[in-house]
Amino acid sequence: MSQVTTTDLYEVTMALSYLREDMRAPATFGLFVRDLPPERGFLVAAGLEPALDHLSRFRVGRSDVEEFAEALRRPAEDLGPLLGLSFDGEVRAVPEGRLVLAGEPLLEVTAPLPQAQLVETYLLSLLCHQTVVAAKAARCVLAAAGRPLVDFSLRRAHGPEAGTTAARLCALVGFAATSNVAAAARYGIPAAGTMAHSYVEAFGSEEQAFRAFARTHPGPVTFLVDTFDTDRGVATAARVFRDLGLGPGCGIRLDSGDLGALARRARGALDAAGLPDVQIIASGGLDEYGVDRLVREGAPIDVYAVGSRVGVAADAPYPDAAYKLVEYDGRPVMKLSPGKVTAPGRKQVFRGPGLRDVIGLANEEPPEGTEPLLRTVMRGGLRTEPPDTLAAARLRFEADLAHLPEEARRIRSPVAPLPTVSTRLTALTTVVRHRIEVRTGSGR
Amino acid sequence: MSQVTTTDLYEVTMALSYLREDMRAPATFGLFVRDLPPERGFLVAAGLEPALDHLSRFRVGRSDVEEFAEALRRPAEDLGPLLGLSFDGEVRAVPEGRLVLAGEPLLEVTAPLPQAQLVETYLLSLLCHQTVVAAKAARCVLAAAGRPLVDFSLRRAHGPEAGTTAARLCALVGFAATSNVAAAARYGIPAAGTMAHSYVEAFGSEEQAFRAFARTHPGPVTFLVDTFDTDRGVATAARVFRDLGLGPGCGIRLDSGDLGALARRARGALDAAGLPDVQIIASGGLDEYGVDRLVREGAPIDVYAVGSRVGVAADAPYPDAAYKLVEYDGRPVMKLSPGKVTAPGRKQVFRGPGLRDVIGLANEEPPEGTEPLLRTVMRGGLRTEPPDTLAAARLRFEADLAHLPEEARRIRSPVAPLPTVSTRLTALTTVVRHRIEVRTGSGR
Repeated sequence: MSQVTTTDLYEVTMALSYLREDMRAPATFGLFVRDLPPERGFLVAAGLEPALDHLSRFRVGRSDVEEFAEALRRPAEDLGPLLGLSFDGEVRAVPEGRLVLAGEPLLEVTAPLPQAQLVETYLLSLLCHQTVVAAKAARCVLAAAGRPLVDFSLRRAHGPEAGTTAARLCALVGFAATSNVAAAARYGIPAAGTMAHSYVEAFGSEEQAFRAFARTHPGPVTFLVDTFDTDRGVATAARVFRDLGLGPGCGIRLDSGDLGALARRARGALDAAGLPDVQIIASGGLDEYGVDRLVREGAPIDVYAVGSRVGVAADAPYPDAAYKLVEYDGRPVMKLSPGKVTAPGRKQVFRGPGLRDVIGLANEEPPEGTEPLLRTVMRGGLRTEPPDTLAAARLRFEADLAHLPEEARRIRSPVAPLPTVSTRLTALTTVVRHRIEVRTGSGR
Repeated sequence: MSQVTTTDLYEVTMALSYLREDMRAPATFGLFVRDLPPERGFLVAAGLEPALDHLSRFRVGRSDVEEFAEALRRPAEDLGPLLGLSFDGEVRAVPEGRLVLAGEPLLEVTAPLPQAQLVETYLLSLLCHQTVVAAKAARCVLAAAGRPLVDFSLRRAHGPEAGTTAARLCALVGFAATSNVAAAARYGIPAAGTMAHSYVEAFGSEEQAFRAFARTHPGPVTFLVDTFDTDRGVATAARVFRDLGLGPGCGIRLDSGDLGALARRARGALDAAGLPDVQIIASGGLDEYGVDRLVREGAPIDVYAVGSRVGVAADAPYPDAAYKLVEYDGRPVMKLSPGKVTAPGRKQVFRGPGLRDVIGLANEEPPEGTEPLLRTVMRGGLRTEPPDTLAAARLRFEADLAHLPEEARRIRSPVAPLPTVSTRLTALTTVVRHRIEVRTGSGR
């Protein structure tokens, strides 16, 4: 399917109109999240790499024009001006892995108006969900407090592509592994996975199943122990581990029931069997809330596998994100729609210590002791630097996380830092609002 | 990316073990949703067409084996038995568009155990989210009570592929159009879309923007009227419509604020301007709850556009779905994990009038006055019939919806019909449970 036509039709109607009206002056659009979802103390910038891939390949081909024409029920000739259009603009963006807050642009696109408009939908479809999934996964990292996490989200993500994206985002925020083989190969992430309940059922007995598994997979193995009765499953696993002389690197997985209580009993049984090195892995409906509860109650769980709820960011599956025109032909613009007022002008986010951020104008002097978050990552439609690596993004994430205030790190009722707005941006907003109100007669 | 390796690693470890142990007897797995999400009176079977595409193309190639080996940190030679494995099994499934209830298999796969196991994750990743998104969209159709709906979900869906899937599902349950051009082309859905706030802002005045839009797009147009001040926007739109002699087929779109109140004022203004044929389209954070409220308060809104919340099924973004082994080598199996007990054996769903369903065994006589839901759609790895059409799925959806009881159709606190279990399935479950408890010593 063409990435170019995977877009809202209105981008096409508008771009066509801009071309007809000869409105090709540079426009800047800012992509930002208006308000953080409930129960979020931060978001994580994510999705930039695929976004830049998209922009660098963007070119309206003949078959795209035909699809657009069909959608508009017009002859393809009417859409001639779109043919061959590619993206040769500039992108300033927050690198992946950095923490972002409400109102902070994740990305600003500056390009001739028709181009900057046409790429809106696809950019939103990449950055919106990746940002919330990365944030959800990051909260799991906070909850696990140093214990390894494994991504099990593929099966319930919104399709195989979304699942593979989720695996990448989990790795970006520090997960130890993913169950998704394709994602592991594509992104260089360790893969993890052992057996399902069906495996035990197919053999009919846990002992037969565990022994067969160890025959097929020499070396450390993990046994799923809750297919019938967890305590007995643990005992069977312990017996097989001992019989086969296994121990270090091995594990048992609990996937149902009261994970804390079962883990305590399992730990006791394993230790009593002389298997202190066998790890306990917990899964089954977990996300940061479940992990946090288990960690706080001191459950002897060594590894947490999280899936469904994290891959879809279940309690905040989309952000209140927008891609808004902030400047056209050198003129700052804004909208005044109720509840959706935007701030005009090209922006920069100045990050102070403890994520005390200032949202200002792109050409402002950085306030003392702050660091600008947005970098120029594309110029003339070309990347300004080689593709980013997951490892680099992960380091950025870890560095920002280390400075996140305690109240924003909380799993329950976190309080996000609130960026302030620079004097210059506030002044510009006032001027532009006044100018629009005078011209349109609104606001009186 | 390979569809074959887009799977959980444990499918591979298990399949390899089955091959090594020569466990290639036929296995049946059932894919079902254990419990409906809160606020759902039904689900809609969806995702079968791509699932059958996947199965008919499934073949483990050399590069897949290499990815698997890398994930397992083993030499590719160890995985030799997997090379060339394809799917040549049978699939019985509920056709897309039919309503489904808790515990009812959406699909049953019967194939040699390694094959049936290997395809688990990908099938789940297709059917899980499609079923919940289709159900969410179906509830919008109920709420709109006959008014046309438009899908605007692409930008906030979980990636471009998920957005395109959502467009198809919205069409499947009766939406009139989608904003997604690629989905429109691919699935033969009407495309819809007009202008964004940025369009108005780029011109600086609504009047100039509307006139330019009409110049580019001769014929009926829709103007977005809430960029600055909605009442004034409506007045400007009315003036432009009249000046240009436009009316029937045209519309205005409201995208913010109190949509009901704004629509009433807009309707009054349009009627007073002699434009009774100009339609009012509402958008902005709507899903079935918002549409229901507006319809109940009698808002004069002609078309509803729903997006973010529907495309991600925001309040139920994943179902409690499972793919469980129910029979192996002619022997019915089940698991007894706490809270996750499954029923053994190959099943059929017998649909009675008013969705009074009976879940029974596949080889049972249908109870009088019922219709079996699962059909054999694949045999020997080949489809038994030509690919289904969206139109046929939509007809099935409409037919089932017409029989859905009133309490399941409710938008707030719906009550789903609860399938009953046939005497034969209940008896089999008792026997199998007893057999397992005796053998494993559990349940005592």
